Amino acid sequence: MAEQKLSGAGLRGQSAGETALCTVGKSGSGLTYRGFDIQTLAEHARFEEVAYLLLKGKLPSRAELDAYIARLKSLRGLPDALKTVLEQIPADAHPMEVMRTGASMLGNLETEESFDAQQNVADRLVAALPSIIAYWYRFSHDGQRIDTATDDDSTGAHFLHLLHGEAPSRLHADAMNVSLILYAEHEFNASTFTARVCASTLSDLYSCVTGAIGSLRGPLHGGANEAAMEMIEGFASPDDAERGMLDKLARKEKIMGFGHAIYRESDPRNAIIKQWAERLADDVGDRVLYPVSVRCEEVMWREKKLFCNADFFHASAYHFMGIPTKLFTPIFVMARVTGWCAHVFEQRANNRIIRPSADYTGPEHCDWVPIDQRNG
Amino acid sequence: MAEQKLSGAGLRGQSAGETALCTVGKSGSGLTYRGFDIQTLAEHARFEEVAYLLLKGKLPSRAELDAYIARLKSLRGLPDALKTVLEQIPADAHPMEVMRTGASMLGNLETEESFDAQQNVADRLVAALPSIIAYWYRFSHDGQRIDTATDDDSTGAHFLHLLHGEAPSRLHADAMNVSLILYAEHEFNASTFTARVCASTLSDLYSCVTGAIGSLRGPLHGGANEAAMEMIEGFASPDDAERGMLDKLARKEKIMGFGHAIYRESDPRNAIIKQWAERLADDVGDRVLYPVSVRCEEVMWREKKLFCNADFFHASAYHFMGIPTKLFTPIFVMARVTGWCAHVFEQRANNRIIRPSADYTGPEHCDWVPIDQRNG
Repeated sequence: MAEQKLSGAGLRGQSAGETALCTVGKSGSGLTYRGFDIQTLAEHARFEEVAYLLLKGKLPSRAELDAYIARLKSLRGLPDALKTVLEQIPADAHPMEVMRTGASMLGNLETEESFDAQQNVADRLVAALPSIIAYWYRFSHDGQRIDTATDDDSTGAHFLHLLHGEAPSRLHADAMNVSLILYAEHEFNASTFTARVCASTLSDLYSCVTGAIGSLRGPLHGGANEAAMEMIEGFASPDDAERGMLDKLARKEKIMGFGHAIYRESDPRNAIIKQWAERLADDVGDRVLYPVSVRCEEVMWREKKLFCNADFFHASAYHFMGIPTKLFTPIFVMARVTGWCAHVFEQRANNRIIRPSADYTGPEHCDWVPIDQRNG
Repeated sequence: MAEQKLSGAGLRGQSAGETALCTVGKSGSGLTYRGFDIQTLAEHARFEEVAYLLLKGKLPSRAELDAYIARLKSLRGLPDALKTVLEQIPADAHPMEVMRTGASMLGNLETEESFDAQQNVADRLVAALPSIIAYWYRFSHDGQRIDTATDDDSTGAHFLHLLHGEAPSRLHADAMNVSLILYAEHEFNASTFTARVCASTLSDLYSCVTGAIGSLRGPLHGGANEAAMEMIEGFASPDDAERGMLDKLARKEKIMGFGHAIYRESDPRNAIIKQWAERLADDVGDRVLYPVSVRCEEVMWREKKLFCNADFFHASAYHFMGIPTKLFTPIFVMARVTGWCAHVFEQRANNRIIRPSADYTGPEHCDWVPIDQRNG
């Protein structure tokens, strides 16, 4: 069936379609969203402005942004049936499975009846996903049934507010804002490609996002910042980190948070989040985690010429804001849902079902053997 | 980034990997599972035997099959927390969204802690998915909290038993058995490819199956048998069907249940399910639906040289067994979950993350415009 044999496994370097949303690793611009450099967006934009850019195709005017933020704020509450579902999920569940189930359940209650509703469904998901994970976390871990409708102007502040039970500092809100921008979109990564394959059957947007969450759950995709956190927490000092890293390298252990499938020399998101991690470290008076992180970066570059990707300094940055490690990947979902939905819109606008072929490696014709003549 | 431009959209005719599970449309053998012709399997096998073949790699001995069936029977019950979740889903929800949510929720309660557990998780899904849809359906439509642990020996009889509240006739059990075999596996179709993309991130099996259900929900993939049912129900006689089909063709309406992305001359599953539809029609004394279906087949071949695919005669067959039309695609899930899981095992055994590239069609470098200088 395969008319054309691909050169690499995993479709690496193969085009699987077109996008106007993003470039990754193009020379001269490490990462762009609809033509805007990630550095520019991280410096000037609000996450909601980036969400608007991705989902609605242009930067909003002030009136449009105000209306969009007001709309997102109005969509933060959760239906009672969804709360009941979240209350059935035990505290030791994988938080990404909670996100997956919450997104799927919301689809049952607020079905996308036609593609005309896609912008509404995307807005609802952007607004509700932070509420979903926070509601479950606070109920299962603290026994609290929280009200998820806060008045915070930003998605990041809203999430921190729900998590900690109080509005965050300006520094924390700003750091979360940048983090969500950095994670919002990244071309045909595995979770986004999952969403597009699902969209290509003309399925609903909840199905696409639910599937994408499932793919982001995998340790080869999301989760690198959680793994990085677990590693750096194990080091007592930069010198300890140096010894530990060299040991890991000697044992050829996989070290998460470094290198990238597409970037070759650096991840343009790293310099940005590293600055914020340093600010947050100063703010909490940290003398260990940030210096340890810097030493890890130095050792990996010196020994392996491997650079930090977006995930590595996110670990300490989130930690300094008091975020439990197991919620790091769900934050990735809160950001990337904007990219996923924008890719679904794009797939729907110019669709053909994504149905590749396979190279067959199994047995040729097999004859039937009656059951009593088979070997056990 | 794209080093190689693909010749067609939707990866059509492109190899996206290897499989030993299935051939589709190879000359001389329309459809094989691990080398066995679909005709042979439909004639001789039990669905559980085919599930064993796909999931465990060989046809079982009698002792192995007996043990496997006993094991599936023991896994039909649902945890209370899952029942509570299903009870939160309204009667007008899309049944495929119920399946998606049920599979996802089960993952929260019975997490796949390591890939060593993958056979257990697959068995659980094969056994529990019919219970999930039947529990929701009977609760939301009939107000009944059913006990999902039946003693029926086959998956098909189990489902019909739960749906109708009594064990099915031998004919119905046998027809369902064949139907599940026909739908069990079909190479790199969109839902299976979704499962493999998800698996390639090393995510858990529940995520892979949840994502696949979401893709099968799309009307370009699952759902063709439901659309066929709605059409044939609208015809009062074969002559009415002839007029109606010609009208639809004249209006260039899309007619579901005909043709196929890969098969060129016929779908090898059609002759099989058509025989069973005829037997079921005789059994219920039908004088309309089956003759109408046959006339539709004749008109489409005469006018368009389009053949019936697996879905077309499934519509009347399911209808004769008293299955509500909206549950047709969930039955597809009960069958295809075996293929999905087998593909996930295969992906895990020889994995590279599936991360294609895209052709960029968006704007080149954009300069930042302060918000108050933008057009609304």
